[in-house]
Parts: sequence; structure tokens; C-alpha cells
Amino acid sequence: MRTVPQHARLALLLEVSSTPKPGNVDREREYEDLRFEHFVAGAVGTEDGFERAAGGGAVGDSFERAVAGMSEQTGGNTQFGAVLLLVPLVRAAANAPRRGEFDGEDAAAVVRATTVADAVDFYRAFEHVDVAVDEPPEGMEDLDVRQGGDAEPALRDRGLTLADVMERSASVDGLAAEYVNGFERTFAAASAIADGDGPVTERTAAVFLDLLAAEPDTFIATQHDRETAQEVTRRAAAARAGEESVTELAAEFVERGINPGTTADIVAGGLFVALERGVEV
Amino acid sequence: MRTVPQHARLALLLEVSSTPKPGNVDREREYEDLRFEHFVAGAVGTEDGFERAAGGGAVGDSFERAVAGMSEQTGGNTQFGAVLLLVPLVRAAANAPRRGEFDGEDAAAVVRATTVADAVDFYRAFEHVDVAVDEPPEGMEDLDVRQGGDAEPALRDRGLTLADVMERSASVDGLAAEYVNGFERTFAAASAIADGDGPVTERTAAVFLDLLAAEPDTFIATQHDRETAQEVTRRAAAARAGEESVTELAAEFVERGINPGTTADIVAGGLFVALERGVEV
Repeated sequence: MRTVPQHARLALLLEVSSTPKPGNVDREREYEDLRFEHFVAGAVGTEDGFERAAGGGAVGDSFERAVAGMSEQTGGNTQFGAVLLLVPLVRAAANAPRRGEFDGEDAAAVVRATTVADAVDFYRAFEHVDVAVDEPPEGMEDLDVRQGGDAEPALRDRGLTLADVMERSASVDGLAAEYVNGFERTFAAASAIADGDGPVTERTAAVFLDLLAAEPDTFIATQHDRETAQEVTRRAAAARAGEESVTELAAEFVERGINPGTTADIVAGGLFVALERGVEV
Repeated sequence: MRTVPQHARLALLLEVSSTPKPGNVDREREYEDLRFEHFVAGAVGTEDGFERAAGGGAVGDSFERAVAGMSEQTGGNTQFGAVLLLVPLVRAAANAPRRGEFDGEDAAAVVRATTVADAVDFYRAFEHVDVAVDEPPEGMEDLDVRQGGDAEPALRDRGLTLADVMERSASVDGLAAEYVNGFERTFAAASAIADGDGPVTERTAAVFLDLLAAEPDTFIATQHDRETAQEVTRRAAAARAGEESVTELAAEFVERGINPGTTADIVAGGLFVALERGVEV
């Protein structure tokens, strides 16, 4: 039987193997400098971090180590957000009384128990890889994640835990929102993947499109703007309704550099939960 | 820095990610009941076995455990041969005085040190998954691998080590030949992958075609017949010379169920050696 951390790695691998996921790197689409094999190597590199998370290590430290390992490939940021989402899920899964018996509240409890040290390690993780982020809001310049570990004094002065940091970003970052809202979309994605028919990668691609059509992707809003994120939501809904071709949409989004990263991260989290609950590959 | 067993898993994943490899499952081609994600889950499942091999565990036991883990997916046999080739390579790599400093002779020494218990565990591995094999030669019925662990008395009576078992199959099985010949084609593939230009998956696909054009694939000879294996060699050579389209050849071979599995296994071994010697992804 596969272990909890093995399911985390398998979730990352199945996410990138599912196709078509308009705008994302998948088996059939990639960017010249961000390729399928970068995601594969990134997933393998996360092992030590996920082992720590499952073994009871701190959330921040486990995350930072997973990102350090993920970054040992030449493509840059492959799965920073997915790993961020997975770490508290892995911990909750490892703590479950029986395999698969955990829910969003259990993962939320892991988040609530985070400390200032977890926040510092979260910031340190940004030193390993370039992550697209917005400018910090006014009055929060000392909390700019691009400083990495240099933000430690500000975090300690303000006494901010990782849960606090996420709360401050939840309105503009779909992953922080998951941390704050009890991983609602992640568990909904898991149920949708579990309830589907056919090969797991096909079910996953369908769930990805559903999520993309339901809410603007915050990574697109950060990399481009809110209007582009809203356009993607509308067009994903049209594709879902059969009014647009999914494969043409995928080609156009890659051409325009529109990468719904947050939606992909939530799908990776959903795959992990689905695997823990017994979905077969 | 990735560990030796992580490189073994990454090699399996990069092998199936490389395309086009005419006749094999890859990112763009699969069979209805043997899909890309089965190989991905198979690779993740090998972890415990490779960790044992790197940690000094017996070759046979490490192999049997890797195959047991690999088999926890619904596609059946995905990487039995590749894992068989990788186990002594992983052990030789883990024993190397410095990362990457090992050669075919070191792996051959691992093979020569195998015992009857390794042979028994090798036979047991056949209980986990259906592997296409030929009828045993006359007078060797008691050594038919399809018996699994039931062959133990015969192996013990004859005092056959895993090295002895491989020697008896070397003339008809390309992987057994590697065990006996000091992993010659595996290390040549590693050098060719290391010397190539461009993304590692493209280099790997090119090396696969070179190997396929050089020698008949023994898995095809087993599953079909010697003539089919020879036809594949000729047509791969024609594709390499630009006289046939590689992608059309890939489509035709999948359609005909022609799966050059031994060549894919040697490529996976070559990828592992190349990664250990510093090839970047």
C-alpha cells in the first residue's frame, strides 16, 4: 500500500499528466523553458519535505524543504503552490485514525496550529525559486514575500503565524483562501474526481475545467490582471458547455502565456485527497 | 541533491515521458488498458525496493519489493524489466566512492555476488504481475518463472544464484544479457543521452530509436516472434535515416501491439546512469 507522502508525490505527477488543462503544462503542452519533465523532476524532489510533514515535522520547515527539493531542476517554479496546499493535507492525512478518514476541518486545525517559525520558513521557501507575486499592499512592505528569510524580524515583531500570513492574503490568493476556508474547493475537487468515470487523468481534466469555469484563477490575476482571469472563467464555462473547443482554448492560453496555476494547485490537492480516500489508478 | 533511489524513480518517469518511442507507452501514446498513469503510479510504487537496494539490501529482495509496489495500479506490468535492470545499478551507484563514479564492471560485481536466495526472490516477483515470457527450454521445466516462489526447491537443488539464472537466459533475453555482459548497452545509452543536445526527453527518444535500430528487441521476439523483432529493427533504422516517419511508425506499432519493452528498459537504465553522472533535467 502506498504511503501518505507517496500519494502526495503521485498527486503532483497525475496533475501534470492530466490533459487537456487549458493553459497549464500537461503531457501534451509545454512552454519552451518550462517543460513536462521539469514538473516530473520537481515532484520527485519534494520527497524529503512530504516525508517530514507526514512524520510530524513543522509545516513551515516541511514546506521549505519540499520547495528546495522541487527546485533542483532547470525549469524554475513548477509546483510551489501545489506543495503549499499539500503540506497541511499530508499532515492531516498522516494523523487520520484510519487511512482516508480526514476532512477539511482536520487540515484547517493543522493550519491553526502553525507558529511564527512556520511563517519564517514559508518566507524562506521563496529564496529557492522565483514565484510570481503581487506588490504587497500599502503599509505591508516589510512583509513582502520576495525578501525571503529577511522578513523574519518583521514577522517576529508582529507575531504573525503562517495562519495569520495566509489570512492576510486570502482575498487575493486562492491558495491562502483554502488555508482559511477549510480547504473547501480542494475537498470538493476530491469528491468530483472520486465520483467521475473513466481513467483518473480524464476525470481530473474535467474537474479542472469545472473549477476554472467556477471562479477566476488568482494566479492569472497576479500574472496578468483581473480582466484576463475573468475572461478565462467565461471561456472555460463556454468550453464546458461545448461552445468552445477545449483543445483550441488550451493552445490559445499557452500561446498567450495564460497559466491557471491556482486551479492546477487545487486539483493536485484534490487528487491527493482522492487517492487517500481510495481512488485507484 | 537528489538521492540515488530518487534518480532511479526519476529515470522510470523520464523514460515514459520521452516521446516518440515507437511502440511504447509514452506521453502521447497508450493502450486502452495500459495507460501513461499506470507507469507513473508504477514508478512511485518502486520506492521501497530502490531504497533497500541503495541501503545494502539483497538484490533479489529489493527487486521483489520494488515489483510488489510497482504492481499497485490497475494496468498490470509496467516496469518489471526496467526495475530488474535498475536494482544492481542502484546498488553499484550507492557503493560508488563519489556520486556517479561507477561503471558496468561495478554493476557486474553486484550481479556476481548474488545468491540462491536472490534467485528465489526474483522468481517470487513473478507472483505480483503477469509478465510475458517464453516457454522454458526442454529439461528446464522446473525452472519456469511462471511458477513464482514454487520454483524454490528446484533453484536450491541446482544451487542456482540470480547470476546463474540470468546466464541461462542471456541468449534470448536482452536484460539477462546486460546482467551477463557488464551492462554494456545500458552504459552506452547513458553516454549517448549525456552527449546529446536539447531537452533530456528528446535526447532519450533519439537514443531509444538508435538502440531499436541496432538490435532486435527480445521482448518483441517473446510476445510476437523473431521475424517481427527483426522487422522492427529494420524499420527503426529506416526511421532513423529519415526514410520513414517516426510518428507514423509509433502509431502503427501501437496499433499492432508491438511493444519494444526491452529497449525501453535499457533506456531507463541509461537514464539512471546519466542522472547519476550529472545530466540535468
